Amino acid sequence: MPTLEQARAWYHGSDPVHDFDHIARVYRMAERLAEAEGADVEIVRAAALLHDAEGSDPASASGRAAHHHSSAEFAARILADEGWDEARIAAVRHCIRAHRFRDVSEPPRTLEAKIIFDADKLDALGAVGAARVIAYAACHGTPFYAPPSEHFLQTGDEAEGEPHSAYHEHLFKLRKLRDRMHTPAARAIAAERLHYLDGFFERLVAEWQGEK
Amino acid sequence: MPTLEQARAWYHGSDPVHDFDHIARVYRMAERLAEAEGADVEIVRAAALLHDAEGSDPASASGRAAHHHSSAEFAARILADEGWDEARIAAVRHCIRAHRFRDVSEPPRTLEAKIIFDADKLDALGAVGAARVIAYAACHGTPFYAPPSEHFLQTGDEAEGEPHSAYHEHLFKLRKLRDRMHTPAARAIAAERLHYLDGFFERLVAEWQGEK
Repeated sequence: MPTLEQARAWYHGSDPVHDFDHIARVYRMAERLAEAEGADVEIVRAAALLHDAEGSDPASASGRAAHHHSSAEFAARILADEGWDEARIAAVRHCIRAHRFRDVSEPPRTLEAKIIFDADKLDALGAVGAARVIAYAACHGTPFYAPPSEHFLQTGDEAEGEPHSAYHEHLFKLRKLRDRMHTPAARAIAAERLHYLDGFFERLVAEWQGEK
Repeated sequence: MPTLEQARAWYHGSDPVHDFDHIARVYRMAERLAEAEGADVEIVRAAALLHDAEGSDPASASGRAAHHHSSAEFAARILADEGWDEARIAAVRHCIRAHRFRDVSEPPRTLEAKIIFDADKLDALGAVGAARVIAYAACHGTPFYAPPSEHFLQTGDEAEGEPHSAYHEHLFKLRKLRDRMHTPAARAIAAERLHYLDGFFERLVAEWQGEK
């Protein structure tokens, strides 16, 4: 079984949103959910460590889009070298392939895959989620906040010239994550973290407009 | 008197920490403080609009270090063109030269200069302050959080190999800003915003360590 410290070597990117700190947090959260839900902790740990191992280079957009597939193959090689049997390797591969929010072609079928999906998404909520969505905007030259247009609020698509600010991402994606969680343990944590994140953006907007 | 919209043309940088949104927020806050403290609103508005106009290009570190001097000279030219008299131009120049936290050679002497200093520093606290310090770390390749060493906590200097995370900046600089405020109106807002920022980082660390 690879350790968290061994896993560090697989992550080279300096993308602040998918760096090794993200892996470490997902690893801890996945362990916690596995305990609460009675899942196979070894499968969950291996999948958490390896879920972003390939394609974490933010320079490559296509790399990122397919990173769940290439990471699953990378994981299979690593675990075969460690002497894992076929069935357990397949279980980890499924966890990794099914963790991607935007790709619904392989939804999580096992409890372990549901936990990896949930742990990864929980890292987009709470104060950590606020930090990550702000960092993403800053690194991509979009503002923290811009007033969303009526068109955006209705359709989720920006009007012409409207920036996709961190606040837009909050409204469009982060607020929906709680309802995408698969396990009750994750849903409870998500509800609490979303409440905090809602408050963060409410406050950010109020300060921005000079009301606080 | 230049307007907020005219001022937009003076700011070209894409630095998310000192972009035009920062200017707009400082402008609104400076107006609010001027009203509360009974200061000359025109002087305060002009200084807020112009306080970072030169040297906002983050590519130039020396430009940033001396930006309060070059912005003061830029402001003098703009306001002379608008027909402002010498004494009022001198008042704005003083506001701009005295706003820099790290340069204590010219402390704010007038109420208007104290307000510009305070309004600028208030933008480093609260949810906006959290967003800015996170963005700065992300854009400079340092983590949001790393455990501060005993050496750092004692001296404010990092131990060898210790990253200056956003949390380090919070402990070392942001937590001290309230006591640097000059006006009672700003001190009250700073206390409330610092309380929020403290809570943000407390929560960030708790989530990071898997406790929330």
